[in-house]
Amino acid sequence: MRALTRFSVKPLSTMTRRLADVASGRSEPDLVIGGARVLSTYSERILPDREIWLSDGRIAAVKPAGTHKGSAKRYEARGGIIAPGLVDPHIHIESSMVTACAYAEAALLNGTTTIFCDSHEIGNVMDVAGVEAMLEDARMAPLSIFLTVPSTVPATSPQLETAGGDLTAAKIAALFDKWPEAVALGEKMDFVQVAMGDERSHAILAAALERGRPVSGHVYGREFVSAYAASGVTDTHEAIDREIADDMLEAGIWLFLRGGPPSTPWHSLPDAIKTITELGSSHKRVAVCTDDRDADDLMMFGLDWVTREAMKAGMRPEQAWAMGSLHGATRFGMEGDIGGLGGGRRADLVLLDDAFKPVSTWYGGELVVDGGKITPLLDQALSTRYQYPQAAYHTVKLPKTIKLTPDLPTEKVIAHTIKTELPGITLGHVTVTLEPANDWQTHFERHGLCFVTVVERHAKSAGNVAHGLLTSFNLKQGAVASSVGHDSHNIIIAGTNEADMHVALRALEETQGGACVVRDGKVTAMVPLPIAGLLSDKRVTEVAEQVRALKVEWEKAGCSIPYMGFNLIPLSVIPEIRITDKGLVLVPEMEIVPLFEVA
Amino acid sequence: MRALTRFSVKPLSTMTRRLADVASGRSEPDLVIGGARVLSTYSERILPDREIWLSDGRIAAVKPAGTHKGSAKRYEARGGIIAPGLVDPHIHIESSMVTACAYAEAALLNGTTTIFCDSHEIGNVMDVAGVEAMLEDARMAPLSIFLTVPSTVPATSPQLETAGGDLTAAKIAALFDKWPEAVALGEKMDFVQVAMGDERSHAILAAALERGRPVSGHVYGREFVSAYAASGVTDTHEAIDREIADDMLEAGIWLFLRGGPPSTPWHSLPDAIKTITELGSSHKRVAVCTDDRDADDLMMFGLDWVTREAMKAGMRPEQAWAMGSLHGATRFGMEGDIGGLGGGRRADLVLLDDAFKPVSTWYGGELVVDGGKITPLLDQALSTRYQYPQAAYHTVKLPKTIKLTPDLPTEKVIAHTIKTELPGITLGHVTVTLEPANDWQTHFERHGLCFVTVVERHAKSAGNVAHGLLTSFNLKQGAVASSVGHDSHNIIIAGTNEADMHVALRALEETQGGACVVRDGKVTAMVPLPIAGLLSDKRVTEVAEQVRALKVEWEKAGCSIPYMGFNLIPLSVIPEIRITDKGLVLVPEMEIVPLFEVA
Repeated sequence: MRALTRFSVKPLSTMTRRLADVASGRSEPDLVIGGARVLSTYSERILPDREIWLSDGRIAAVKPAGTHKGSAKRYEARGGIIAPGLVDPHIHIESSMVTACAYAEAALLNGTTTIFCDSHEIGNVMDVAGVEAMLEDARMAPLSIFLTVPSTVPATSPQLETAGGDLTAAKIAALFDKWPEAVALGEKMDFVQVAMGDERSHAILAAALERGRPVSGHVYGREFVSAYAASGVTDTHEAIDREIADDMLEAGIWLFLRGGPPSTPWHSLPDAIKTITELGSSHKRVAVCTDDRDADDLMMFGLDWVTREAMKAGMRPEQAWAMGSLHGATRFGMEGDIGGLGGGRRADLVLLDDAFKPVSTWYGGELVVDGGKITPLLDQALSTRYQYPQAAYHTVKLPKTIKLTPDLPTEKVIAHTIKTELPGITLGHVTVTLEPANDWQTHFERHGLCFVTVVERHAKSAGNVAHGLLTSFNLKQGAVASSVGHDSHNIIIAGTNEADMHVALRALEETQGGACVVRDGKVTAMVPLPIAGLLSDKRVTEVAEQVRALKVEWEKAGCSIPYMGFNLIPLSVIPEIRITDKGLVLVPEMEIVPLFEVA
Repeated sequence: MRALTRFSVKPLSTMTRRLADVASGRSEPDLVIGGARVLSTYSERILPDREIWLSDGRIAAVKPAGTHKGSAKRYEARGGIIAPGLVDPHIHIESSMVTACAYAEAALLNGTTTIFCDSHEIGNVMDVAGVEAMLEDARMAPLSIFLTVPSTVPATSPQLETAGGDLTAAKIAALFDKWPEAVALGEKMDFVQVAMGDERSHAILAAALERGRPVSGHVYGREFVSAYAASGVTDTHEAIDREIADDMLEAGIWLFLRGGPPSTPWHSLPDAIKTITELGSSHKRVAVCTDDRDADDLMMFGLDWVTREAMKAGMRPEQAWAMGSLHGATRFGMEGDIGGLGGGRRADLVLLDDAFKPVSTWYGGELVVDGGKITPLLDQALSTRYQYPQAAYHTVKLPKTIKLTPDLPTEKVIAHTIKTELPGITLGHVTVTLEPANDWQTHFERHGLCFVTVVERHAKSAGNVAHGLLTSFNLKQGAVASSVGHDSHNIIIAGTNEADMHVALRALEETQGGACVVRDGKVTAMVPLPIAGLLSDKRVTEVAEQVRALKVEWEKAGCSIPYMGFNLIPLSVIPEIRITDKGLVLVPEMEIVPLFEVA
């Protein structure tokens, strides 16, 4: 059986005569899809009584129903709406803990046929080699995957954290020149440095701009928007309210409205969309995106769900679907190939029910999801996935001896602690006065604390281990740990006792990465992530099941913020205090503070 | 004084740090423009109380009014609206009878700062050399001029007409590879051949598509739209009514609504725009364009006027201005540089009065039009224009002996005549029975006829001369002639007597091209077009004056269709009958018929 990948459909330049023949009725289409209305992302209308003629994986024509009289194969939808496959303009595959090949399954089930991924997680662990391995992975996937080249690796600086990768302007330029699917620069996270005119940051911007590639952004704070736009950034997905959304649009920045599980801070869409629904902006430069999804949430809260959230927020369904498909394609200069049902476009289609839920998906003209289930063709394609190189399976390189908890203070101290509470993005800087006590448990009970420790795992330091304390994390007993501590992806462990923390650490070492929950010396849940300590090599359904089991144990353990939020505790670009392998970092001061100061 | 061209503003990649400095308030802008509202083509709103900070020819930031406190130079608008300069997505400079350098003056007066031109007229005369000369011309102009590479030269085939140029797929590919400003393929006029799968036509499409360049189109007839779109065409400017406009949008084709003097067929906007105003299409993939303008009309009916026509037709002004600027920029992948007032964009701005008429224009941050008049800076820039090569001044190469009128029939014949009436695009095929007579004047008086003759002028044939008769042209006496007979640009002469026709022909030979009116053996008006027989080398104001004088004499002579329509008489891609140097051509049959058949 031939492979089903992005390359299964040949370039339009090679088949215009064939398509003109089919559209003119001189040749038979491969397939005619009828019996449904058609959603036009171009005119933003739902058109009754049409049929779609496919040939060689592309759309030859959309014609009035009943036009085709020949013998071509037909698919009768019996109601519903045919729409273009969704286009996700900003995601990190690694957040889903699966490979690109495995990600495709969930995407297609959600009606998503193209994604623009920023592989900065694997870049932080494995540098260019990681980015390139994921590009090879993407080329084998039954999904159209384009890269926005990671722009901010490490997220801060070697003074503040130890990462496995260091993507310089020269390395980024080389990626652009080697990989045609590297269509843009990925989110430039160091927006303060960009606004301040930092040399390295602007050299990276220049590497993209001088090659005519657009620059994706990431910015908080209205005061930074104009300098950020002046630096050449032309999209962001971080608008958290209607005012900053408005500022960004006016500054010429495309807006990607991010939706996510409603209890999380990923779900900024409902507020940011008010630039349209309350302040009267046009939606033509607005798209929707997912950004990050764990394997479990990916099945429930896909881009189709985000698109429906835009409808719930007041957009007409035709507008919302255009925001989910055509607009992202237009932003990246690909509207001639994807994002709508125009002539010559890839036949990436989805059949929706009347509630705009995907029922069936065609990828490059092939039926890959039918009635909500993957087809044997897709099942077969997913069974041969890309094999990551052996080096990717050996990225958890720990120091020989590791002390996982700080010494018990012998005098009265002030501790700088990290407050963890929902929604879990911003983490409060809380100082706690610790009177001398006999053991840590006394402190923990008195102040609602537990340990948090970051262990450098790239073998790029002298065995850095940093100790901290969490306030309000609410862990009742045992430990939780992860090798996905953003963005350097060192090991982060929270625990009530050092023994369980060691069990967790050793478990992660054994699997070479993952996330786990430990109680009474035993691992009660584990998602192994052996590839770069970030990705499973299993199919998405299996990983989703492991993640669901992890979440159950995670919740049982009492943790006040979920696994995805826990992973952000080391992300030292978000206020107010974080912990990296170098210690406690104050943001935006970008200073390291000691855990204890004499009271 | 330094030159003022597209290259006066450096690439954004080289100045992001500088712009970030200015936007952040660490450096002074070069200029602050205040005292006006701001039109956002992004959000489609008019924003009160803003000021625009410029630096190095680009927009550093748009800030709330009064933000700037420094010593930078200020421009106080005292009312009105600042908007981005207009972007014309489809024009032929040659129709304006001036060079690219000269065209710039009229464009800037109209608030147009970027044009996408298809130089297929000069290509038809001089092949690649003509296209390249005009590209050099464009590079020296104080205007941003991009090329859509002429795709259909000759317009038909050597069997039906003799052109000076023959742009093959290989030549077109070479133009793309040599000239970065060749951003798209120009209008593919042979839409019937494209729909029929013609090999040469599709090889030319492939040359563009395989280089990732979009393809511009030109199509009449709803039955051709789907095959045309399937062939990779993604814009057209030929929608003549709401139904075909609708079809094009649905097929994924960007719509350029063409406006022009209301008495001419160029003004298809009012009908085609009804796809939006009556049928509910989104306007997001709709732009406005001028296509062709003579030097005189260019001053009166510029793209600003077309944009206001869109307002008159029901668009909100903010939407209409976006259709005149951002949408064309987006279609050609340039919205990061032009089309809106975003950070980092070129400072191509126009100050509008409250009726949306341009008052002042900044090109790359330089004030070039102020209060409706060009500034000394622009005047200076326009005084040093590109010099076309000598070969361009010698393109009217006539046969030695020329018989300009047909022999008087000696028996009863049926004559195939060309009916010329307004609007003048389609020309009716009228057969007239001629009883034997003593002279042509008797026939002319009896049937309302006059002579029409086409003389091959490229020295590429054995001295082809074709004779025909016009019905209803209403020429009272003398002759009119032009070297701009579309698209091969042979000489076309209409006349009531051979003597005056010879005077006209010799006048054009002497000037090496132009348009003239002759009465009683004397030239009463003449626009000399010595460059390729298409262009004057004077400034646009001077040429406009010559054109106005020509129009006066043209009208006095009684001609039923104006000069621009007259030039289309040889254009053998429009029904029903035309005349080329090969004879009378029936369209769409694409057959040559004799002038007389025995009755």
